[in-house]
Amino acid sequence: MSLPSLTLNETHDPALRSWVESANAEGCPFPVQNLPYGVFRRAGSDEAFRAGVAIGSQILDLQAAQAAGAFSGFDDLARRAAHAAAEGATLNALMALDTAAWSALRLALSRVLRTGSAHQTELVACLVPQADAEHALPAAIGDYTDFYTSIHHATAVGKLFRPDNPLLPNYKWVPIGYHGRASSIGVSGQQFRRPLGQTKAPDAETPSFGPCKRLDYELEVGIFIGGGNALGEAVAIEEAETKVFGLSLLNDWSARDVQAWEYQPLGPFLSKSFASTISPWIVTLEALAPYRCAWTREAGDPQPLPYLDSPSLRETGAFDLQLEVLIQTRAMRDAGQAPQRLSLSNFRDSYWTVSQLVAHHTVNGCNLRPGDFLGSGTQSGPGPGEAGSLLELTGGGKQAIALAGGEKRIFLEDGDTIVMRAAARRDGLPLIGFGEAAGTVLPARSLP
Amino acid sequence: MSLPSLTLNETHDPALRSWVESANAEGCPFPVQNLPYGVFRRAGSDEAFRAGVAIGSQILDLQAAQAAGAFSGFDDLARRAAHAAAEGATLNALMALDTAAWSALRLALSRVLRTGSAHQTELVACLVPQADAEHALPAAIGDYTDFYTSIHHATAVGKLFRPDNPLLPNYKWVPIGYHGRASSIGVSGQQFRRPLGQTKAPDAETPSFGPCKRLDYELEVGIFIGGGNALGEAVAIEEAETKVFGLSLLNDWSARDVQAWEYQPLGPFLSKSFASTISPWIVTLEALAPYRCAWTREAGDPQPLPYLDSPSLRETGAFDLQLEVLIQTRAMRDAGQAPQRLSLSNFRDSYWTVSQLVAHHTVNGCNLRPGDFLGSGTQSGPGPGEAGSLLELTGGGKQAIALAGGEKRIFLEDGDTIVMRAAARRDGLPLIGFGEAAGTVLPARSLP
Repeated sequence: MSLPSLTLNETHDPALRSWVESANAEGCPFPVQNLPYGVFRRAGSDEAFRAGVAIGSQILDLQAAQAAGAFSGFDDLARRAAHAAAEGATLNALMALDTAAWSALRLALSRVLRTGSAHQTELVACLVPQADAEHALPAAIGDYTDFYTSIHHATAVGKLFRPDNPLLPNYKWVPIGYHGRASSIGVSGQQFRRPLGQTKAPDAETPSFGPCKRLDYELEVGIFIGGGNALGEAVAIEEAETKVFGLSLLNDWSARDVQAWEYQPLGPFLSKSFASTISPWIVTLEALAPYRCAWTREAGDPQPLPYLDSPSLRETGAFDLQLEVLIQTRAMRDAGQAPQRLSLSNFRDSYWTVSQLVAHHTVNGCNLRPGDFLGSGTQSGPGPGEAGSLLELTGGGKQAIALAGGEKRIFLEDGDTIVMRAAARRDGLPLIGFGEAAGTVLPARSLP
Repeated sequence: MSLPSLTLNETHDPALRSWVESANAEGCPFPVQNLPYGVFRRAGSDEAFRAGVAIGSQILDLQAAQAAGAFSGFDDLARRAAHAAAEGATLNALMALDTAAWSALRLALSRVLRTGSAHQTELVACLVPQADAEHALPAAIGDYTDFYTSIHHATAVGKLFRPDNPLLPNYKWVPIGYHGRASSIGVSGQQFRRPLGQTKAPDAETPSFGPCKRLDYELEVGIFIGGGNALGEAVAIEEAETKVFGLSLLNDWSARDVQAWEYQPLGPFLSKSFASTISPWIVTLEALAPYRCAWTREAGDPQPLPYLDSPSLRETGAFDLQLEVLIQTRAMRDAGQAPQRLSLSNFRDSYWTVSQLVAHHTVNGCNLRPGDFLGSGTQSGPGPGEAGSLLELTGGGKQAIALAGGEKRIFLEDGDTIVMRAAARRDGLPLIGFGEAAGTVLPARSLP
């Protein structure tokens, strides 16, 4: 099968340039080869939220472009997709289409945004500077599922919770996942109160109640479902990527002390459900086609069961996607200091691939719907400085991290902002950026 | 605070009778004191689904009643609530209102459906026999959370999974819950394929893949959220019931063999997400006011932490609600045999109350939205024959259950239908029924 997510075409040509000049700058996260989708309006306005495409420092307003007649030259498929994108306050209608429609729209947008496009004049009026925009969630998320795909994270965290038994016997067979809370997912810029909750110190007789003392982030890749499957039908691994609209960033904030006390036997609950922050932009799988890489397993590891296996995995199953976490404390912000890097890892080190997650999720007949959201689980790499959470970076809260301004952190303090970034890079190709997923911790509400 | 869920008023008067004669029959589940809401259309038609109220053997079509002008005599609050109920294909808009609005609509509906109502003539034309109706989910369910509130269930299941450590130390402090899958929730009559999945026999070296061999049901009470809370705000236990629109039945189908292999460390996932079945009717908390009872803890058990405690719990925190599970195998159906009872338990035996679940769920700031759904967890009672799952009734799959026609069951077989029923009973008061949550197991899809 020729999946658009694996096929190179004219939209990937590294020589393409846009008449939106800022898109052509070296290192710009949104070149004409990217074209990620989001939902936005002018900041502070009461405009309706609507879909847009990031191009350079601008957003192409798809509703305005449709009203200006800029889609009239598109072929039927692209026009239908553009109308679906322009019609509401979320991308769900676009996500409900299929890879042929998504691909047609990408090609059409690529053509009208290139240097020399006949549509430049009418489209210039449809640009909104990103600096002037505010975002909403790109989709109405029906169900949110969080996975646990980094074996480095699972092993490191397992050591802290179960020193004798860090990696459970099912890990190398089952893409472990659990249902998450959709209602508290917010878009970059989210500010949330430090959660209150029950915790129990190891030496305490009884639990106590109060603000979380071990507040952490988790660096994850988000996966937006497009299309979907009927209840009772599974998605075969070979077609799994046709059910993925695109990728984003996800910060799965975690209250470690609450988690430790509540998580047995049914898994994390209030330790996660107070907030999760995603990036405003969804990068399509097609945009990431040139940045795919082999998925491998270490010698001695079991090969996947047939429903999780496919020859194409070993050629192009993974994504070469650099992931970065940065912190900016309140003091750093007050002093005008830029965020400081905490870790750098890569999604290619994931033990399970995106297609395996979709195939596993549906193998029991569970239906996925357009706009459903999957988290990859914390992406920690094998090396030092590649851990995607403070829990790991501090050895379970034992070694503080020294920050440039003289501050230290074990877990997050009020006023801290965590910024996540992602970039696909390859020699000779433009950088494909994801924008940021930034979120800030506010003080806990006062106790009743 | 005077909660409508605890306050008796004229709608509860046991002497009330309806001009819908079937509602007055002894033991009718839908007397004029009940008035549960659902969503329906004529079976097999292409009519739009719409809201209705069960009365006797009939459904009052709220959209038709509105069109007939039957709400024109309602006071403002009741009329607004009636319009919200009549406006769409789900009850979410009605659920988004508050207890005052729900209570006003109940009073208005009670008055027009009573013997002697001046509206009888126009409303007769708005009745649809329940026998002629099919149902859809009563609400678009945003998030579904499943709890684990029966200590009898938790202990019995814990013994099977962890013989040395059946009840974990957090159980008596934390109302244990986890996020469930919303997309695969269906309404009574749901038929679903036996799920495929990974399982591992205790003595096997590696897992295998195939149809679930230990398919089970779980008898639960469903809780529909009304109103809701903003992200970052908690709902205090004293006002928690104002955020509950009503109760239903829930069958949380479970693949025990899949569950045993997948559930550590993050909880159940594919073992539950293939299907869940709810009853079509939502019984409001106000209808259940006369059937409330004291919530108690055994001597020696810890008292709840303050955010989970309230003096009113000990008077009226629980619901005296009888819960029944029945089975009808394919052979029984073919022979015209009625479903046979498997167990009978009571929601009053729950270790945690509905208000504690809402207070706990939101204490970290997690937002609940109208239409969100909570499961109580399997409701097993302390006695024999009171276990809400086959896993418990068969002692972990060891002792088969003999059925009347000579068949035996350890776990569910293809063609089996499980029926759940609930009823609130009290001497001198009418029975308040919930209708049925019935679901049927279809054969697994064939392996690829």
